[in-house]
Amino acid sequence: MRHLVSVDDLSLDEIREIFERAKTFSSDLGAWSHLCPGLISASLFYEPSTRTRLSFESAMQRLGGGVLTAAEMGTSSASKGESLADTVRVVTGYADLIVLRHQSEGAARLAVQYSGVPVINAGDGSHEHPTQTLCDLYTLWIERGRIEGLDVLIAGDLRYSRTIHSFVFALARFGANIVCVPHRGLELPPYVVQRLREEYGAEPMRADVSRLGKLAAESDVAYLTPQKPHQLSLFTDAKGMRVDHVDAVYMTRPQTERHGEGANVERYLQLGQSSLEAESLRDAVVMHPLPRRDEISSELDTDPRGIYFKQASRGVPLRMAILAALLGRQPFSARPSDAAPRLYPVRVGENPCPNTTCISRTEERHVTPTFRVTDRYPLRAVCGYCSQELPIRLVGCSTTRHFHSRESATARKIRPDHLVFFRDEEHAAALGFSAATR
Amino acid sequence: MRHLVSVDDLSLDEIREIFERAKTFSSDLGAWSHLCPGLISASLFYEPSTRTRLSFESAMQRLGGGVLTAAEMGTSSASKGESLADTVRVVTGYADLIVLRHQSEGAARLAVQYSGVPVINAGDGSHEHPTQTLCDLYTLWIERGRIEGLDVLIAGDLRYSRTIHSFVFALARFGANIVCVPHRGLELPPYVVQRLREEYGAEPMRADVSRLGKLAAESDVAYLTPQKPHQLSLFTDAKGMRVDHVDAVYMTRPQTERHGEGANVERYLQLGQSSLEAESLRDAVVMHPLPRRDEISSELDTDPRGIYFKQASRGVPLRMAILAALLGRQPFSARPSDAAPRLYPVRVGENPCPNTTCISRTEERHVTPTFRVTDRYPLRAVCGYCSQELPIRLVGCSTTRHFHSRESATARKIRPDHLVFFRDEEHAAALGFSAATR
Amino acid sequence: MRHLVSVDDLSLDEIREIFERAKTFSSDLGAWSHLCPGLISASLFYEPSTRTRLSFESAMQRLGGGVLTAAEMGTSSASKGESLADTVRVVTGYADLIVLRHQSEGAARLAVQYSGVPVINAGDGSHEHPTQTLCDLYTLWIERGRIEGLDVLIAGDLRYSRTIHSFVFALARFGANIVCVPHRGLELPPYVVQRLREEYGAEPMRADVSRLGKLAAESDVAYLTPQKPHQLSLFTDAKGMRVDHVDAVYMTRPQTERHGEGANVERYLQLGQSSLEAESLRDAVVMHPLPRRDEISSELDTDPRGIYFKQASRGVPLRMAILAALLGRQPFSARPSDAAPRLYPVRVGENPCPNTTCISRTEERHVTPTFRVTDRYPLRAVCGYCSQELPIRLVGCSTTRHFHSRESATARKIRPDHLVFFRDEEHAAALGFSAATR
Repeated sequence: MRHLVSVDDLSLDEIREIFERAKTFSSDLGAWSHLCPGLISASLFYEPSTRTRLSFESAMQRLGGGVLTAAEMGTSSASKGESLADTVRVVTGYADLIVLRHQSEGAARLAVQYSGVPVINAGDGSHEHPTQTLCDLYTLWIERGRIEGLDVLIAGDLRYSRTIHSFVFALARFGANIVCVPHRGLELPPYVVQRLREEYGAEPMRADVSRLGKLAAESDVAYLTPQKPHQLSLFTDAKGMRVDHVDAVYMTRPQTERHGEGANVERYLQLGQSSLEAESLRDAVVMHPLPRRDEISSELDTDPRGIYFKQASRGVPLRMAILAALLGRQPFSARPSDAAPRLYPVRVGENPCPNTTCISRTEERHVTPTFRVTDRYPLRAVCGYCSQELPIRLVGCSTTRHFHSRESATARKIRPDHLVFFRDEEHAAALGFSAATR
Repeated sequence: MRHLVSVDDLSLDEIREIFERAKTFSSDLGAWSHLCPGLISASLFYEPSTRTRLSFESAMQRLGGGVLTAAEMGTSSASKGESLADTVRVVTGYADLIVLRHQSEGAARLAVQYSGVPVINAGDGSHEHPTQTLCDLYTLWIERGRIEGLDVLIAGDLRYSRTIHSFVFALARFGANIVCVPHRGLELPPYVVQRLREEYGAEPMRADVSRLGKLAAESDVAYLTPQKPHQLSLFTDAKGMRVDHVDAVYMTRPQTERHGEGANVERYLQLGQSSLEAESLRDAVVMHPLPRRDEISSELDTDPRGIYFKQASRGVPLRMAILAALLGRQPFSARPSDAAPRLYPVRVGENPCPNTTCISRTEERHVTPTFRVTDRYPLRAVCGYCSQELPIRLVGCSTTRHFHSRESATARKIRPDHLVFFRDEEHAAALGFSAATR
Repeated sequence: MRHLVSVDDLSLDEIREIFERAKTFSSDLGAWSHLCPGLISASLFYEPSTRTRLSFESAMQRLGGGVLTAAEMGTSSASKGESLADTVRVVTGYADLIVLRHQSEGAARLAVQYSGVPVINAGDGSHEHPTQTLCDLYTLWIERGRIEGLDVLIAGDLRYSRTIHSFVFALARFGANIVCVPHRGLELPPYVVQRLREEYGAEPMRADVSRLGKLAAESDVAYLTPQKPHQLSLFTDAKGMRVDHVDAVYMTRPQTERHGEGANVERYLQLGQSSLEAESLRDAVVMHPLPRRDEISSELDTDPRGIYFKQASRGVPLRMAILAALLGRQPFSARPSDAAPRLYPVRVGENPCPNTTCISRTEERHVTPTFRVTDRYPLRAVCGYCSQELPIRLVGCSTTRHFHSRESATARKIRPDHLVFFRDEEHAAALGFSAATR
């Protein structure tokens, strides 16, 4: 049984297979009702999200299937205080697939553990929303015929937009280049840049944006390419990698509800015809996850480059392809992902996840905290549910009962399933660990 | 592509065609699921209206189609502050038809401009609700075999009931006569009477209601017939047109939420068997748009004249016929309406619409205000969205840059697409217009 | 036309027929979509109950039918103050069957009077929820192959749990034995015990629970068996009927929202492996209506005895069988119940029902109060809607206009359709009745 919690659950070949199928579906959306008759998907939404819900429900009905809708699970009267784990187990008896939207990071990962049917993550807090990301990639693929090697400009609030983070990882994985045009103070966060560097070798470098015109005039633009930096030195000079041509501009709205007092979005970029008049942007498609506010002028609605409404509508065939695959009516034939990163249970001490809205914290009774090692030297690990980095200062070995600095060579040699994390020496001592004497 | 924003979008022949088809459907509601399989309608409701929504969704399912439900769009969490125009463009990608309920007058007119699929107006503020009106007419047609020449008595709150206004225009258009029995202070508003007069030649005259018994005992009853008044003079005398026989009584609840302090509905008419005992009402059917409160006694529920529940149930076959037509599965074969009244954009100055809840005011970014000329002498015009009359004192010509009194002969000669409206001379001057010197 | 307002609407043979059909359905839930295509059920929910609603909607879709959802009827904006009677009459025109959830006891009984299609009671206040009870019985029947003669232990809040009351009546009717393990102060209420005694001859007796281990250690356990007590004297001694083996444990959550200040649920029973370690409980299945809080430890989730999630999922085939029967696609072939208990209208005086949330009190306009005689000597009667006992002190005869003590022999002889109930002599006098002189 396959689930879709993260884009990383799918191999690149499987994603390309989904895209090919979605393209076939889109030629006549009404012609596929023979694929899933008699099957039922349940929309389990703890947060309202009419757009995402309707897109999934449209896709399921286009496939001839039925839909159960629980759109208001977030109100206490609807869930009656029941744990997500229990609700998922019950709904498993009612439907053949669950589409889950939840406010806690990691909720879909938890649901998978308790579900008897495939689960699709339709957004878990500020963590992942894989079908949105796949829809964005699919739109690029349809518009440009490929993703590898494209130059994709991302603009606006690069710091707080969940959509952007998932999107840049996926772009890097597919080998696209990323031009960052952030609103000042809303740059890509360090952990995103770090993951781009570690997993895809993408070192941010200064970009020469003299050919982008007004679009990038007020930003410190960075260029990230999932190539090794030394290859790029051939093409760059002191002024940075020159951006000559942009394939797509991905605009985001300012996530003002998550901004602290620092951010000032008064002069937030507004895309319009004047900001896109440079030759380098002549055929750049303009994308946006919607809903938009003022960051895209309505004059782009009738400009052939403004494809954000097409982008939204492409969510239907894309989701049809995913549903048909997970429901077993069109199983993947492509090679699956290499083994998923291994998760280890936290065996000693309390849950080390620092994220108070992580499902491992909000639904403690049904969760065994887990972690995933992301780097060995210095040792780094993230929560197995919400992917947030664990605040590690010292690590211990559950066999030797010794603790070490996370930068130490010894730390590196501890078997992952023996790893214990400590905030500090006092914490380690309280759990019965002592400093390594050697 | 056809839409249904107003009853006037359909010709009388098309309406009759809808009625014939609805009648065929109603003989066995379950036998038509082959008509729209694979098609999806989306219920986009910004105001709750369970009855209307369920009626549409039942009709769509009886046709074998699927339904997407967004019943709570009015809450900010559901729409996320997105404009109606954007939401409609997105939902266009999910469904084959949109059923829209919105609190702003003109919302459905706006939706049509941005939708890629047919739109049905399921109520736009206090403006129109065409399928309700068609259901009322259909019920009359079924019960009486025709509409032309019927004597239809409308009773209660004739001033604030949206249903009644649409209904009387449609009755007049079909050539039925209207007997108005208003609660005191809740008479038909002047603009409704004026439109009845202008478009259908129906001059209100006193009615002699001596044969109606208690039903009309406490009202000043008016009689409107879409004939030229001089024809009636043969039949009327000083006491007024005598009402001998009533075919249908259409009762409305007091719209107390819209009443100011003036109205007193303490002794609001309650229809019961005693109020219907006159010989002239012996076979009058009693209609009501529901929900009712106390204005219809439950003793009429079992009286064969009380057909309001039948009236509600007839909404299903009626809406089946409309859906099948707009979805192209049973296209109209009747002759369409003569060209719809021409709408002109407002080119100079701000939006002249005086209605603060009109969609042209509440969603200014996506709306180009328009107007429709309803009379040439004196010049009168209404908002192209909400149909409310524009407060015109002076009119200008955008070519000559002169302004004129709206009663002047010159005003009459200005080409409609050159018309500019002014509140007063100061307003005209501010926009660079000067008084005509000739 | 059949309805399902109470489990008692079905004969034991019909219930067994439902179980057999549900079992057939459950072998492949997706194979029955040919049974109800073209039919529509309407979920009319005045209280949120996502679980019950989704279970019904899943069942209807598994049968190939369509669903109309009105999940928020309880908000005034949705119902617009319309009476339940009117709403039911309207929805009758939209659907082929109504599934009703309402906060007032007796609501489904009222709906039946006004509906033109079958009605299923999906919970009416604290009164009945027959499909939940049938699902519980069905689970027992599947797990144990029979219900008659089983020893079923019910634990926890036996006083305020609606589920438990319906369940014990049904167990007694099927001839199962009941072991009551209440939380202190939350024993079965007297009227439940009394009905068990009167209708099924089940006298509560002390139980010897020495073999149940920790499970019953802190309770005064009672044993009820729908046999005549004298048969049991063979097996019991001063210590009470010994419980050697339990077939099923039915656990309930504390209904704290209904507790007064008296109840103390701080040490509420928590079922876990230690409480079930006695040999007598070795193969007892553990049931729960869900949602649970802490009263069932999650360690039972993976214990084969913990079948509460299976129990929930069995609601789907069970409800499929009920829907198919009531919709006429699989009519009952078993013999129906003997004539339902006769209801008589209250002809004199006001509504005697003491329950302020009974639909006969909350929707007075559409209800003729009724009563049902449950005992002749002394005379006792219950409300025909909510089944609550009427507070009778004196009874009168509407023919003789005399009143009598309800314990008198004369009271016994009054024809039920002539019965009048009085709180006291003053009440009787006010209605024109006098004391019997004989």
